Amino acid sequence: MSANPGSTASRDADKSLVRRFDLGATALFAVEGATLAGAAHLDLFGVIVIGCVTAMGGGMLRDVLIGATPPAALTDPLYVPLAVVASLLTFVLHHPVGQIPSWLITGLDAAGLGLFCASGALKSLDFGLAAISAAFMGTLTAVGGGAMSSVLIGRVPPVLRVDVYAVAALLGATIVVVGVKRGLPKTAVMLAGGVACFGLRVLSAWQHWNLPRIH
Amino acid sequence: MSANPGSTASRDADKSLVRRFDLGATALFAVEGATLAGAAHLDLFGVIVIGCVTAMGGGMLRDVLIGATPPAALTDPLYVPLAVVASLLTFVLHHPVGQIPSWLITGLDAAGLGLFCASGALKSLDFGLAAISAAFMGTLTAVGGGAMSSVLIGRVPPVLRVDVYAVAALLGATIVVVGVKRGLPKTAVMLAGGVACFGLRVLSAWQHWNLPRIH
Amino acid sequence: MSANPGSTASRDADKSLVRRFDLGATALFAVEGATLAGAAHLDLFGVIVIGCVTAMGGGMLRDVLIGATPPAALTDPLYVPLAVVASLLTFVLHHPVGQIPSWLITGLDAAGLGLFCASGALKSLDFGLAAISAAFMGTLTAVGGGAMSSVLIGRVPPVLRVDVYAVAALLGATIVVVGVKRGLPKTAVMLAGGVACFGLRVLSAWQHWNLPRIH
Repeated sequence: MSANPGSTASRDADKSLVRRFDLGATALFAVEGATLAGAAHLDLFGVIVIGCVTAMGGGMLRDVLIGATPPAALTDPLYVPLAVVASLLTFVLHHPVGQIPSWLITGLDAAGLGLFCASGALKSLDFGLAAISAAFMGTLTAVGGGAMSSVLIGRVPPVLRVDVYAVAALLGATIVVVGVKRGLPKTAVMLAGGVACFGLRVLSAWQHWNLPRIH
Repeated sequence: MSANPGSTASRDADKSLVRRFDLGATALFAVEGATLAGAAHLDLFGVIVIGCVTAMGGGMLRDVLIGATPPAALTDPLYVPLAVVASLLTFVLHHPVGQIPSWLITGLDAAGLGLFCASGALKSLDFGLAAISAAFMGTLTAVGGGAMSSVLIGRVPPVLRVDVYAVAALLGATIVVVGVKRGLPKTAVMLAGGVACFGLRVLSAWQHWNLPRIH
Repeated sequence: MSANPGSTASRDADKSLVRRFDLGATALFAVEGATLAGAAHLDLFGVIVIGCVTAMGGGMLRDVLIGATPPAALTDPLYVPLAVVASLLTFVLHHPVGQIPSWLITGLDAAGLGLFCASGALKSLDFGLAAISAAFMGTLTAVGGGAMSSVLIGRVPPVLRVDVYAVAALLGATIVVVGVKRGLPKTAVMLAGGVACFGLRVLSAWQHWNLPRIH
């Protein structure tokens, strides 16, 4: 299924790179999702469910769409336990959830967004998607889990609510796609894309940047 | 994967027919989705996201369910740019969105519904689905994108809210399935299904036809 | 795709077992979904749509995620007619929906939950998923359709709202996974898992058991 023109060694290196970014984002998004679910007064299992959906929803959507089934979240032994344990620890340790400052939630979310837009873009390229589709899939990977969780708890998803959210993910994914197509070192390209997404998202939240809207 | 008993030439003709109906529906649904998102005061990127989800959600759901992954929306170079540009133009050109008459929105939606129920039914038959499943998938292709968008912006989807909506898509898809099974010319069958769906939907909106409900 | 180490005969026996549990859950969830949709004053087609989504959504999600596409709900000639007829009969026969006692809805739902957590776990094992992922998929199969329907009609899904809901499904799925891995007879294991899930769910509803939550 893979249309990656590289050697087996290069494909294995990509897989390990995608996995590390995926696992980082999974842990961060599980903590963020569990925090929001706790604040919405869900019970212990509801917190774990929302933590898991936030953490694994975007990556599973990516894997189903690019044809990588069963998704990494189901075949790799680490994703589910990591998401469950991160959600559980968030529930247990942060009982006074109201005390978690909102800038920390924004930071966790921006970091998860950066890691997932990079892993989504590279994995989509490895499965033979064209450049524009890979950038689109990187964005969808990054915003998908949060959108699913928001819909489940009856809120408008951040991707629609927050200015410069999908834009940040699209920037990161585009940097990865352009860098890989130019043959630059993949680890550097992934880090650059992730940091650019994180930076733009945090900067825009800090400066309250707005996109135009219809009045 | 294809169980279409026809020749390669016939399969290529089907693919090109499905693609033309898909692209027409994609453009129409992007304009409709972007209009609704603009009216809901989403920002520029939210409008593009909702335009894309409305335009490509149903077809991607169809492709994932029939096993045609990656979906046409990700492998064909036209779907994403078409949905993005149509959403962007809707945002830029129709600033006073309130002035778009509701009958025009209903008409755009009915036309997209007609095109997608036909393309969904034919593509599902080409992937070996039985008649009743292909009619079901044609309906799901037509109503899926709108339902996803409605859920994202916190509204009840048209398929549940509007009388004679899924019925119109089911009629169109059934005409395509019966016509193809009888060996009638596919272009004619697709046009007949699309027009029947469009006609029934517009007629029922105009005449305020209601289905029974429980009081 | 199947990584089941058993013989062809054993795989066919599994398939028939999964199918019987699937069909039972499909009928039960269609009746439950149609009842809730009727109570929400949806029209005839809305009731059928919600009945079908509740009945087939979880199984289709399972099949797409484990790579069994097209899903059984689309290739088996019984699923769609069963879901449609069960929804239709519910609409026609139970006009005074308010008279259906809530304990009956809870019972139908618990029975569907039990059947689906067992079929989801066994089918996931047959497609080569590891034990923990198969238990996770059994839970997702059981709670998926109800969650989709709730989101469509604008309610918080039972899996988040109800105490000891996902826990019951996880218990049933875990029993199936452990039993199959130990080589116990599959029919007995499936029945044990289904009954355990049903029993825990009904007991917790009757006793108003609560999980901890953050205040």
